[in-house]
Amino acid sequence: MSDDNARHAEKMRKIKAARDKMMETKTEEKGLIIVHTGPGKGKSSSGFGMVMRAIQHGMGCAVVQFIKGDRDTGEKSFLRERFAEECRFFVSGEGFTWETQDKERDIAAAQAGWKIAQEQILDPAIDFVLLDEINIALRYDYLDIDEVVDFLLHQKPRMTHVCLTGRNAKPELIEAADLVTEMTLVKHPFRDGVMAQKGVEF
Amino acid sequence: MSDDNARHAEKMRKIKAARDKMMETKTEEKGLIIVHTGPGKGKSSSGFGMVMRAIQHGMGCAVVQFIKGDRDTGEKSFLRERFAEECRFFVSGEGFTWETQDKERDIAAAQAGWKIAQEQILDPAIDFVLLDEINIALRYDYLDIDEVVDFLLHQKPRMTHVCLTGRNAKPELIEAADLVTEMTLVKHPFRDGVMAQKGVEF
Repeated sequence: MSDDNARHAEKMRKIKAARDKMMETKTEEKGLIIVHTGPGKGKSSSGFGMVMRAIQHGMGCAVVQFIKGDRDTGEKSFLRERFAEECRFFVSGEGFTWETQDKERDIAAAQAGWKIAQEQILDPAIDFVLLDEINIALRYDYLDIDEVVDFLLHQKPRMTHVCLTGRNAKPELIEAADLVTEMTLVKHPFRDGVMAQKGVEF
Repeated sequence: MSDDNARHAEKMRKIKAARDKMMETKTEEKGLIIVHTGPGKGKSSSGFGMVMRAIQHGMGCAVVQFIKGDRDTGEKSFLRERFAEECRFFVSGEGFTWETQDKERDIAAAQAGWKIAQEQILDPAIDFVLLDEINIALRYDYLDIDEVVDFLLHQKPRMTHVCLTGRNAKPELIEAADLVTEMTLVKHPFRDGVMAQKGVEF
C-alpha cells in the first residue's frame, strides 16, 4: 500500500467511525410523511422509484394520481400491467388543470382522489402510498390543506409511509412532513427547443 | 356552469392556448445528458423511476452503479430479479468510499465501471443508461471529468439518454448537460433520530 493510499485509508477510517457513531443514534423506525416539491424534475419519478423499492421489499403499495389523468405515462402502464397485485393504482384527475377547463369537475375529481387516498392509507395491507401531484390540488384549494395535514398527522397508521408530490407544496404540509426535498431546476432542454422525451419526461 | 366556473374555464383556456403554442416550438428529439445532483433525496430513485418508464416504452436500459456496491438496495434486486432482459445491471463499486478505506481499489472499481458505461452507451441496443453515483467517483477524481464529458458530448449516440447522479456534480458536467436538477434537502428525519427506512432510503 502506497503512502498516499495509507493516508487515504486513515482519513476514510475516521469518516467511517464518525458515521457509524452517528448511525447508532438513529434507532427510531416510523412511517414517514415525505414531500417532493419544487420546479425541478424528479418529483414524481423519484416517488415511483420508491414504489419500485417498496415492491421489492414486499411492502403493499398504492398510488393515487391526482392530476395527470389523461396521459399514458410509462410508470402508470408499467405498474398497472406488471404489478397489479403488488401496487394498487388509482387515477382521480383528468389531466393537468389547464386541459380540463372545468373547475367543478376538477374539484370533484380531487375530492374523489382524496377519499381513495384516505382508504388506502388506513388499509392495513398497504405500507407505502404515493399521492402523485396532490400538491397541485392543494394549491388550488381543491382539497382542504388543514384536513389533509390533520389526517396525515393523526389518522395515518404509525408505520405507513406517505409520499406527496407536486410543485408549490403548502407551508402547512412542509411543516408536518418528516422528509422534504425541493427539486430545483438548474437547466432544462425545453429552453433550447427540445421536446418532451419518452422515458425521461413521461 | 356557475360564473366562477366560467371565469375559471376562460382563464384555463388561455393558459392552455399559451402552453400549446409553446409546445409547438419544441420539435427537436434527441438523447439527453441528464444530471441529478444536490444534497437532497431522490437523485437515484428518480433515475430508477426513469428506468421504469423507459422499460415500459420498450427502450433498452443499462444501469452502472459506481459506489453503492455492497448494499442490497431494493432497486438493484428489483431490476436484477425481475427485469434482467429489459435492463442490464452492473455494479462497479464496493460500497461508499468510507466503507472500503482503500483508494487504489476504489479507483480501479470506478475505472472498471466507466469502461462498462462507455460500452453500454455505445451499444445500439441500449437507449437509456443510468450512471448511478458516478458524481462521487468524479468528485474524488477517480475518473477524469474531461474524459467523461468529452465522451458524452462527442461519442454518445445522438438518441441515447444518459442520466448521471450523485451530489457535488462537477461544473464541467453541468455545463455539458441538457437537463440538470438539484435536489435540495429541506428537512430530513435523521435530524430527529429516525433511522434509514426500508422502501424510502434503500
